[in-house]
Amino acid sequence: MSLDLSPYLDAIEADLHDVLTPVDGPAALLYRMMQYHLGWLDAALAPTEAPRGKRLRPLMCLLACEAVDGRWRTALPAASAIELVHNFSLVHDDIEDNSETRRHRATVWSLWGVPQAINTGDAMWSIARLTCHRLTALGHPPESVLRLMAILDQACLELCTGQYLDLSFETRDTVSLADYMRMIGGKTAALLSASLGAGAVLAGAADATVACYQACGRELGLAFQITDDILGIWGDPAVTGKSAASDVLARKKTLPILYALAWEHDARGYDLARLFARPSLSEEHVPAVLAVLDGAGARAYAEERAREHIDRALRHLDESGGRGPAQVALRKLAQSLVGRRT
Amino acid sequence: MSLDLSPYLDAIEADLHDVLTPVDGPAALLYRMMQYHLGWLDAALAPTEAPRGKRLRPLMCLLACEAVDGRWRTALPAASAIELVHNFSLVHDDIEDNSETRRHRATVWSLWGVPQAINTGDAMWSIARLTCHRLTALGHPPESVLRLMAILDQACLELCTGQYLDLSFETRDTVSLADYMRMIGGKTAALLSASLGAGAVLAGAADATVACYQACGRELGLAFQITDDILGIWGDPAVTGKSAASDVLARKKTLPILYALAWEHDARGYDLARLFARPSLSEEHVPAVLAVLDGAGARAYAEERAREHIDRALRHLDESGGRGPAQVALRKLAQSLVGRRT
Repeated sequence: MSLDLSPYLDAIEADLHDVLTPVDGPAALLYRMMQYHLGWLDAALAPTEAPRGKRLRPLMCLLACEAVDGRWRTALPAASAIELVHNFSLVHDDIEDNSETRRHRATVWSLWGVPQAINTGDAMWSIARLTCHRLTALGHPPESVLRLMAILDQACLELCTGQYLDLSFETRDTVSLADYMRMIGGKTAALLSASLGAGAVLAGAADATVACYQACGRELGLAFQITDDILGIWGDPAVTGKSAASDVLARKKTLPILYALAWEHDARGYDLARLFARPSLSEEHVPAVLAVLDGAGARAYAEERAREHIDRALRHLDESGGRGPAQVALRKLAQSLVGRRT
Repeated sequence: MSLDLSPYLDAIEADLHDVLTPVDGPAALLYRMMQYHLGWLDAALAPTEAPRGKRLRPLMCLLACEAVDGRWRTALPAASAIELVHNFSLVHDDIEDNSETRRHRATVWSLWGVPQAINTGDAMWSIARLTCHRLTALGHPPESVLRLMAILDQACLELCTGQYLDLSFETRDTVSLADYMRMIGGKTAALLSASLGAGAVLAGAADATVACYQACGRELGLAFQITDDILGIWGDPAVTGKSAASDVLARKKTLPILYALAWEHDARGYDLARLFARPSLSEEHVPAVLAVLDGAGARAYAEERAREHIDRALRHLDESGGRGPAQVALRKLAQSLVGRRT
């Protein structure tokens, strides 16, 4: 019988609501902008039920905690902190990427301007950190709380390093596959790794167990991002909510593109480089790009890489020694990350 | 005999250099942008000796630690963290305020663009947090490290709340003196309060002692900002490095202006409101604004408020029970914050 995940997801949402309780007075809008970003308020600041994120990171944190015999409810402050770190980085990424919408909604900066959006992200990050201090009152020894914070702080630095690389790729002519893996290792894998590691730490697990969960999260993150890259080119617009081949139009240097660019056995590889050297790409160029990717076998290559990382993630998960329904649920979640359509 | 502060300042600079050691490889520029901001590199990324900040906050942290019998060198990671938090907030403030220069140098965003500057600030903040974990190896019990982090995290949230208010004042017609005090309480006083409190915490001081240092820092911060406001209008351009009456030209709602705006006993108060309702102010309006401020006694009022906050700061300092040359040095530093010319 499979584990019902709704109690975990409901507890995460309730805890996040507690953490971001609106303050009255002159700074009320600061909190409302955060609530808007999390999908609880609409642009007029009225309550709403907007599509939320998957809450994948906090969910995995709680499941890892339970799988190594921890009490998952005592890990809720860490789960909330992780989700807030993820969301602060999205608020900043949306500014940095000049994205006007996310999940079909206007981004914070497009509604309230860049200055307030930068600061709202900073405030959300401050709250993420502050909320971890509740772990002490929930019975976690100070050593564990510090260990958790070190994992989260390290993930934040890796996140920024990954984002630095991603931004720098935009102006670089060549990006190696190694650079790309390093970028997604920071931008996507670091926080997933920290999420699983945090859960194990708060269960009081041994270092070796924590390391297994971290390694599992890292591989999952790599697979997750590569799957995102595939969806960014071949995803169904009706399901992803993005325009068809959106990453092609944005000339994003994602794995399938970089693979095809490096694929020098055929003249078509150079066509792609020429296409990507244009100041912009429009709908009319998409078929030519897709043809080159197809000739290079870029989609199959990316799918194979994603599958490899999932397999490694599952191996680390099995080595962790975690058990019970939560461990089974983690396994299923991991497997669902490839082959997903959105 | 007065305490020689150079060993403290040198140790702070050396520790900051250690913390921001450049990494080689594709993310090297991320660290170099931070080093540029701190004044160690020029815009071409060559070593330089640019004018640095006063390092007031880390200095006060170390002095507070020593004044309550702590070993100040063991507090260096916290001092560095505080200086990095201060500087991350400056990197973001410069974007939010659209400031092209700081300390006579181009700001990070004006050299490398807004996206990289936001991310560089985020990376600096991550490093600030990470570096606190070194305190454990220096012998501080985990409870003290957590207590320090809670103080710093709380200050960061107050910093963001203050910045939110400051940004919101730009588009508000009326700002009360209470709102203004709340704004500078977050934007300037919170981190100075945390700096002194952090030093006391790392000396293992009792809660009451820590509270005295925090209260002292808060009052100092208020006095510091009000003095900044006075310099922003009446400071000597040759000394401050800003244009004469720069805050008037920028129509900043600082204490002297708000006081004069609230000064309804004379028709000239309304002249100021009319002047500030203009879409922009130029040099030619400055004499009229200064005349209204003069008529309202705005400068004397602000100087009186600054003096009051310094007096309260000194009272809290005396009540702290700190002693020795470090305590005397703190007293002198506090007194030097009003009456300064830059």
